[in-house]
Amino acid sequence: MIKTIIWENEQLVILNQNKLPEEVIYEPCNSVHEVAEAIKTLKVRGAPLIGVTAAFGLALGVTQYEGSFENFHQYYTSIREELAATRPTAVNLFWALQRMDGVYHKNSHKSPAELGRQMLDEAQAMYEEDINTNKMIGEHGAQLLDKPSRVLTICNAGALATCGYGTALGVIRTAYKQNKIIQVWACETRPVLQGARLTVWELMQDKIPVKLITDNMAGYIMQLDQVDAVIVGADRIAANGDTANKIGTYTLAVLAKYHHIPFYVAAPQSTIDRSLASGQDIPIEERAAEEVRSIRGVSVTVKDVEVFNPAFDVTDNSLITGIITEKKVLRPPFEHSLRL
Amino acid sequence: MIKTIIWENEQLVILNQNKLPEEVIYEPCNSVHEVAEAIKTLKVRGAPLIGVTAAFGLALGVTQYEGSFENFHQYYTSIREELAATRPTAVNLFWALQRMDGVYHKNSHKSPAELGRQMLDEAQAMYEEDINTNKMIGEHGAQLLDKPSRVLTICNAGALATCGYGTALGVIRTAYKQNKIIQVWACETRPVLQGARLTVWELMQDKIPVKLITDNMAGYIMQLDQVDAVIVGADRIAANGDTANKIGTYTLAVLAKYHHIPFYVAAPQSTIDRSLASGQDIPIEERAAEEVRSIRGVSVTVKDVEVFNPAFDVTDNSLITGIITEKKVLRPPFEHSLRL
Repeated sequence: MIKTIIWENEQLVILNQNKLPEEVIYEPCNSVHEVAEAIKTLKVRGAPLIGVTAAFGLALGVTQYEGSFENFHQYYTSIREELAATRPTAVNLFWALQRMDGVYHKNSHKSPAELGRQMLDEAQAMYEEDINTNKMIGEHGAQLLDKPSRVLTICNAGALATCGYGTALGVIRTAYKQNKIIQVWACETRPVLQGARLTVWELMQDKIPVKLITDNMAGYIMQLDQVDAVIVGADRIAANGDTANKIGTYTLAVLAKYHHIPFYVAAPQSTIDRSLASGQDIPIEERAAEEVRSIRGVSVTVKDVEVFNPAFDVTDNSLITGIITEKKVLRPPFEHSLRL
Repeated sequence: MIKTIIWENEQLVILNQNKLPEEVIYEPCNSVHEVAEAIKTLKVRGAPLIGVTAAFGLALGVTQYEGSFENFHQYYTSIREELAATRPTAVNLFWALQRMDGVYHKNSHKSPAELGRQMLDEAQAMYEEDINTNKMIGEHGAQLLDKPSRVLTICNAGALATCGYGTALGVIRTAYKQNKIIQVWACETRPVLQGARLTVWELMQDKIPVKLITDNMAGYIMQLDQVDAVIVGADRIAANGDTANKIGTYTLAVLAKYHHIPFYVAAPQSTIDRSLASGQDIPIEERAAEEVRSIRGVSVTVKDVEVFNPAFDVTDNSLITGIITEKKVLRPPFEHSLRL
């Protein structure tokens, strides 16, 4: 199984996903700052993985504390802040930090060294829970496919986006074992090409049949009746089911609706943000223009052209057939099913 | 004004569009074969421009004939065939060759040298007609915008796709002069990036405000209410109005319908193929997998991944608000309006 992050020798070792698929390179992160940079620069990405990585980052920072007990709270607040500021959209980041806060508050009388060990245990538990969660998502999701299917996905909601197994690709993995997958259509997912670089690589490692398309081909293959279901991941799901996910997801959802193709979101419960009534309140990260102006370092346009580069979009709940969680598949109306 | 092709010194000089926007390089084509290769490899592209380029190519071949009068017909057939085989979807290619056939049949008693001169005159006439046609398309199309607008387009249906002025960008040019354009959204148009490389460059040359997005952002900016109209070119329009155009066009049309945004096709009458009842009969060119697997020479995925690479798709007439031609704006039902 692909390992995305590994805790060993008192440091967090990460698979640098920017180097995939050409190179499989693991890099140590020796400080909170290095962990934060790895998240910001997309070396580590995918909502569930960002969450667990931040948890390890926070634990790492606590274990490294060398100051006085009195100053610890201020230190904790500052390293937590650095991790929280890395990326705004995926709620799993904030969920994970809050869970770590719980450990801190329960053990605030202990020494930072002891607290650090407890936090590492918690991060490790989250890591293992994430894999189990994905396997449950896979079980529930695979049941939605009632025949051998061609499934379209965007970005990478796979083992690489999690601690292992994947959410959308977890469903595909389980369904494949049940002979329910004929082929996966991977949208390349500009600008950062997580589909072309990560999903294609990950599925080919597991010998799951995958065909790559550019993002603008999705409508055409649906028109050709080559897609039986769309399954995507999520970065944040509002209380009404509106779902933020990789830019391009909303376009796929509109296309699926028009072609009467079921559109599923696969995500752990930690992706649900019940504090937001609707997707309108989800902050959408805008990233550097250079991501659009160039591809893997090669310029593709006039160098000073204006660019819009939202990293995510929000899919309206009315376009979603079901949300696949580790507990069960939630159905519309999501205002009700998400309350449980 | 940008010149895409120039007849000078008994040869056809073409702007190599594969080098744009970094380099503005003109290259001579000294034989039919070189003209055919320029079309196949996308050095020269855009339905109207392909047509006129092929006409010049055929004329070039005829002027270069050195054999006997008896063998001329066979020669003509073979060079015509080489040009006709370059690209299957844009009907303007076949339209232009048929128009040249007319000159040939009317002058078949003349020497190849004399015939060649007549054919050059005809190609030159087509060249000038194309520019005038585009200006008329611009006039008719600009009237469709009743307020300062944000217009989204895909690929390059501009001066670079024609002998000058452009079809979809011709409408935008005329509308801009009338203060009806706030901003153009250019979809980058993977795999060959004609939007990022050509449309952005062409509009920036004319100081028309343009913002670049990746193709998968189109749905999101429509959801944000940032698009007032979609205007695209066409490679072939069937008798019922179904329109083949650059891959991704169909996706934009579905998105426009969902968001109640008008969707216009801008094309000369030479793009209409009344011999085909519907778009189902339009041949769709599939191009090399390498176009998807790499971007400007840089690999973006696993090197042997399976790929689907259709260069065009077909937009159903039900998704088209109007077809802007040099005569007038055609409205649904297109079965009727296209008959005239």
